[in-house]
Amino acid sequence: MDVNEVLRRYRFLTRSKLLRYLPARQPARYLYDLLPTYPLQGGKALRPALCLATCQAYGKSAEKALPAAVALELLHNAFLVHDDIADAAVLRRGRPALHAAHGVAVALNAGDALAVFSIRPLLDGGLGRLSRPVLEEFLLLARETLEGQAMELGWIRDNSAAVTVAEYLAMVAKKTSWYTVAAPCRIGALIGSGGRADVARFTPFALYLGAAFQIGDDLLGMAQHRGPDNDLCEGKRTLMLIHLLDHATAPERARLMRFLGLTIQARRSEPVEWIVDLMDQRGSIDFARRSLVGFADAAAAAFEPAFGDLPRSEHRDFLEALVRLFAART
Amino acid sequence: MDVNEVLRRYRFLTRSKLLRYLPARQPARYLYDLLPTYPLQGGKALRPALCLATCQAYGKSAEKALPAAVALELLHNAFLVHDDIADAAVLRRGRPALHAAHGVAVALNAGDALAVFSIRPLLDGGLGRLSRPVLEEFLLLARETLEGQAMELGWIRDNSAAVTVAEYLAMVAKKTSWYTVAAPCRIGALIGSGGRADVARFTPFALYLGAAFQIGDDLLGMAQHRGPDNDLCEGKRTLMLIHLLDHATAPERARLMRFLGLTIQARRSEPVEWIVDLMDQRGSIDFARRSLVGFADAAAAAFEPAFGDLPRSEHRDFLEALVRLFAART
Repeated sequence: MDVNEVLRRYRFLTRSKLLRYLPARQPARYLYDLLPTYPLQGGKALRPALCLATCQAYGKSAEKALPAAVALELLHNAFLVHDDIADAAVLRRGRPALHAAHGVAVALNAGDALAVFSIRPLLDGGLGRLSRPVLEEFLLLARETLEGQAMELGWIRDNSAAVTVAEYLAMVAKKTSWYTVAAPCRIGALIGSGGRADVARFTPFALYLGAAFQIGDDLLGMAQHRGPDNDLCEGKRTLMLIHLLDHATAPERARLMRFLGLTIQARRSEPVEWIVDLMDQRGSIDFARRSLVGFADAAAAAFEPAFGDLPRSEHRDFLEALVRLFAART
Repeated sequence: MDVNEVLRRYRFLTRSKLLRYLPARQPARYLYDLLPTYPLQGGKALRPALCLATCQAYGKSAEKALPAAVALELLHNAFLVHDDIADAAVLRRGRPALHAAHGVAVALNAGDALAVFSIRPLLDGGLGRLSRPVLEEFLLLARETLEGQAMELGWIRDNSAAVTVAEYLAMVAKKTSWYTVAAPCRIGALIGSGGRADVARFTPFALYLGAAFQIGDDLLGMAQHRGPDNDLCEGKRTLMLIHLLDHATAPERARLMRFLGLTIQARRSEPVEWIVDLMDQRGSIDFARRSLVGFADAAAAAFEPAFGDLPRSEHRDFLEALVRLFAART
């Protein structure tokens, strides 16, 4: 099975339908022209894929879950627009961030509109009597994500030197595990089972896979530390940074906290190579790599309780293969 | 009838219930502690009052419409948080704007949370089978508001010198008439009539009353031009500014466009008294005052087709008296 090929297929299916939910209305220049920008720029569409594959693993067609997959992807793009404002990001997928191209005010408003439009597919009849429980899942996933996001943004704002690995994992449980894995699986299972699935079963699988995914993202961000939007300049409390703050010498730690205490604009004109080197020397990168493997292994073990009682199918196989794909991100 | 006393009663009723929808959860410091800030700081709660009074004018109790009134007020506060970021406002009702107190990133996220929590009262059972049509009204009002907001923010961003009175009224029709008058009346009528009311009947009334309300707001903003968040510094295309750009001499117009072309921070350290004087000399303030009276008169005349077939009641009287209250804002 070519996991990436299946991911592409799900993405194509989702994106084709998604564009129909972004109307060509007025005001075009200040609102509607902006809305397809991020959805058209790529991204793996991982959340729709998880939702559609889980629905299929439960024996229903992908079309049944397509409205929910489209809603997930629209909301995701709304979050990306607001995240880029919050992070003062310069680029998104190699092109100017929406607020960089159109100003913060107009972009913030466009993000709000994407969020509002994300509800529409859930109400358009495709989900039938499951419209309401899926909407409830949506509100829950939005809450979890915003709570995780608040933790991360608050730590950056306060330049917190005391974030623990446990706090990091509590944040990841919300803004990655719930948002990216648990909610898409729960929604796919609800639709695939006609509302009968016990959706709590996905929680351990999602926790581990989400943690593996986030740590992979942290590592990837560190490998791209030469870009303007790297995690170090953004002050992100990555697993490596938390480990380093715990294992650096006092002078190293003081220098690190001085760097993190600068404004984001000032951090962007400072060298960061020494931090990456220090992470390497103090074993922080190795710690993150080993953590990723550990969480990926745990996710693989949690696959059976989550999906094991479903009949074997290419869809179940795809979900299982995704775990290996994430583990390979080291 | 003491209109302000009735407004206070509706506000108290709405606010008491609203606070129950803002849970005391973690993360408190970076999210949940922030959410009641704006709802507790006052404001007239005009939208809830219109919704509750319309429901009562249709013969149902205010309690029936209370979930919708709470949802309207929560969404309004979400918009206020995002508006303050978009306008780079310093204050909100005399206290630091949320982003000024907590940083843009954390405040933006809190605004998103208020918007997500605004949906909850609509689903909690109180609205019964009207939950779905009221939710549809909610999505419609959000769309209209974001469209109007996009127009206003786009004109400011592009420092547009060519906004016409017709364009201004098209913007006001969305961001004020629909949002502040039409949607609350439509939702109140839906609930008060058990879903039978023809809600299109409120459109002319809402258009005129919304225009009167917005122009009153423009005039009030000009009277408070010494504050840091005045409309001139924010570059708002008020009715007076549009009139002035049309009636100023070429040198005056050039000077005005130079001022408006500055950054908001630069505009804040510039004198604006001369613009207010010019608006006075060129008849712009008088034009706005006469427009307000004209729209208030039109709203009074449109009251009958909107509410005239309902039995006379204190609630209908309150709604009629609101029109006079708005007209008195000159």
